[in-house]
Amino acid sequence: MKIGFIGLGKMGSRMVGKLLSEGHEVVVWNRSNEAIDDLRSTIKDLKSAGTIEKLIKSLGTPRIIWVMVPHVAVEEILTEVRKFVSEGDIVIDGGNSNYKDTDRRFLEFEKAGIKFLGIGVSGGIIAYENGYPIMVGGNVSAYQYVTTILDSLAKPNGGYEYFGTGGAGHFVKMVHNGVEYAQMQSIGEGFEILEKSAYKFDLSKIASLWGKGTIVSGFLIDRAVESLNKDVKLSEFAGPISRSGEGDWTLQAAKEEGIDPEIIDEAVGFRKKSETDEYIQNSFTAKMINALRHAFGGHEIKKN
Amino acid sequence: MKIGFIGLGKMGSRMVGKLLSEGHEVVVWNRSNEAIDDLRSTIKDLKSAGTIEKLIKSLGTPRIIWVMVPHVAVEEILTEVRKFVSEGDIVIDGGNSNYKDTDRRFLEFEKAGIKFLGIGVSGGIIAYENGYPIMVGGNVSAYQYVTTILDSLAKPNGGYEYFGTGGAGHFVKMVHNGVEYAQMQSIGEGFEILEKSAYKFDLSKIASLWGKGTIVSGFLIDRAVESLNKDVKLSEFAGPISRSGEGDWTLQAAKEEGIDPEIIDEAVGFRKKSETDEYIQNSFTAKMINALRHAFGGHEIKKN
Repeated sequence: MKIGFIGLGKMGSRMVGKLLSEGHEVVVWNRSNEAIDDLRSTIKDLKSAGTIEKLIKSLGTPRIIWVMVPHVAVEEILTEVRKFVSEGDIVIDGGNSNYKDTDRRFLEFEKAGIKFLGIGVSGGIIAYENGYPIMVGGNVSAYQYVTTILDSLAKPNGGYEYFGTGGAGHFVKMVHNGVEYAQMQSIGEGFEILEKSAYKFDLSKIASLWGKGTIVSGFLIDRAVESLNKDVKLSEFAGPISRSGEGDWTLQAAKEEGIDPEIIDEAVGFRKKSETDEYIQNSFTAKMINALRHAFGGHEIKKN
Repeated sequence: MKIGFIGLGKMGSRMVGKLLSEGHEVVVWNRSNEAIDDLRSTIKDLKSAGTIEKLIKSLGTPRIIWVMVPHVAVEEILTEVRKFVSEGDIVIDGGNSNYKDTDRRFLEFEKAGIKFLGIGVSGGIIAYENGYPIMVGGNVSAYQYVTTILDSLAKPNGGYEYFGTGGAGHFVKMVHNGVEYAQMQSIGEGFEILEKSAYKFDLSKIASLWGKGTIVSGFLIDRAVESLNKDVKLSEFAGPISRSGEGDWTLQAAKEEGIDPEIIDEAVGFRKKSETDEYIQNSFTAKMINALRHAFGGHEIKKN
C-alpha cells in the first residue's frame, strides 16, 4: 500500500524500513532533515516530501497517513494534517497519545468524514526484527483497510488487535506501560537484593537462568541478560528515570474508576522521586530500570 | 543415574515422571501412599520404598537423594535422611527452603562428609514439558556429579546454573519469587483497570496481544491468556492470596542488606491484607493473581 509517514524517531524510522522491505510504498516527512538524511544513508531510494502538504498530495486516495511523533507534538502535526486530507482518508496516530485526546480527535476527524485510528505500538526498537505488537482503536473500517500494513509490521512474531472505538487502542497501550513500570521496578529491586548479597553472585548468570522458563521469564528478563552481559555493574546507567506520561495517566484512569493500583502507583512514584533523590539515582534498582529502558527503547540516560 | 526421590507433590511427581522418561532409575518415598498410588496409575512399574531407610538402602553409592517436600517438612525429612546416608553421599533439598536453613544444613551435612545441595526449582507444573529452570547452591563437586540429572530435568527449554556454596541457590530462588509477587500484582492491577474501563474490553484479546512481543510479554502473560480464555471473569478465583514464605524472606534479606524494595514490599503486604480484606478478595487484581498461581502451580484457591 502507499503510506505517508510522519516522524522518523527511533520507532518511526525502523517502522518505515520494515514497511519498505515488505514492499509498501512509503513517503516520509520529518521536522528535521537530519533524520531523513540518516535514514537515506541506509535506504538509498527513500522518498521524502518537503512539507506535510506535499506529502499528503503525493498520496493516492484514500490517503493513509501514519503519524509517529512524541505525544507533545501530536496536536500540532494533526492540525496540519487535517488541512490537507479529504473525506474517506485515513489518519493514524501511532504515538503514545492520551486516550482522552484520541477520543476527542477521533470525533473531530469523523465529523469531517475522515477515518481516525489511535494505535499503540510496543516491542521497542528490537521489534523491527521480532515484529511489532500493535494495539488498535478507532474507525473499524479503517482498521480493516490497513490490515495489510499491520500484517507487515507484525511479522514474524508480533501481532495486532482492534480493541474498540475512539481511544481504546491508546488506553490498552497506556495500561501496558503502567504494568511495564512495575515489572521493570520489580526486576530492578530483585537484582539490587542479589547484588548486595554476601553470596557475591554473578548477576549475569542469574538473569540468564531466569530467562529459561521461570515464572519471571520474558521480554524484560531477556533485556536484563543483554544489559548485564555488557556490564554486570550497569555503571553508566545511574541517574534519574524518565517517564513518558502513561504511568501517570494509568493512575488517573484508575482513580476515575475508583480503584487504587498500589504497586503501579509506587512504581510511578519511584520514578518521580528519582528526579531529585541521589540515593535512588545511584541504586542498582534505578540502574537496572534505566538499562532496561535503554535496551528495549534506545532511551538515553538523563544526567543531572 | 539411580536416584532416591522423596516427596510426590505437584512438582515432585512430575519431576519423577520426567526423570524416568529420560532413562534414570528412580525409587520414591512419600509420606502418604495415596500420592504413590496416584503416580503408579500412570507409571506402572514405579519403584517405591516403604520407609526412608529402605529407600536409602536400595541405592548404590554414592547415593543421591532428592528431597522435594513443603518447606515446613524439610527439617524432619532431612533429619531422617541423615540417619542412613554415609560419607560421599549426595543429599539434595529441592524445595523452597529458607537460604539460612540451607546454609546451616549444608555445614551440618558437610561435617559428616555428606555433600549437600540446596536447589530452587521454578517453572511451575508446566515445566514438566517445557523443562525446569534450576538454581543450584551447595557442594560444587556434588553439583558436577548430578549434572546428568539436571540435564534431563531441564530438557528442552529449561536450564540450570550453580550460584555458590551453602544456600546460594535458595537465595536466588527466593528473590525470584519476590520479583514474581510484584510482577503478578502488576498484571492483576493492569487487568483490573482494563476490566473496569468504559471501553468494555475483551480482556482475553488484550492478554493475547500483550503476549506477542510487548515489553510485558512472557511466562505470566501467557498464563493470563490461558486463564482468561477459560473464563474472562475469573469468577472462581475470588479469595485470599496464599504466600509460601519467600516474599517475606526476600524483604527480610533486603532489610539485612539495608535496602527497601518498595514494590516487592507492597506486593507482599497486599497478599497479607487479602487474608482478611473482602474488598481485596473480590478485586480483579486478586482474582488474576490467584488465577495465575493456579495456572502455573496448580495452586488451589483458599475459600474463606
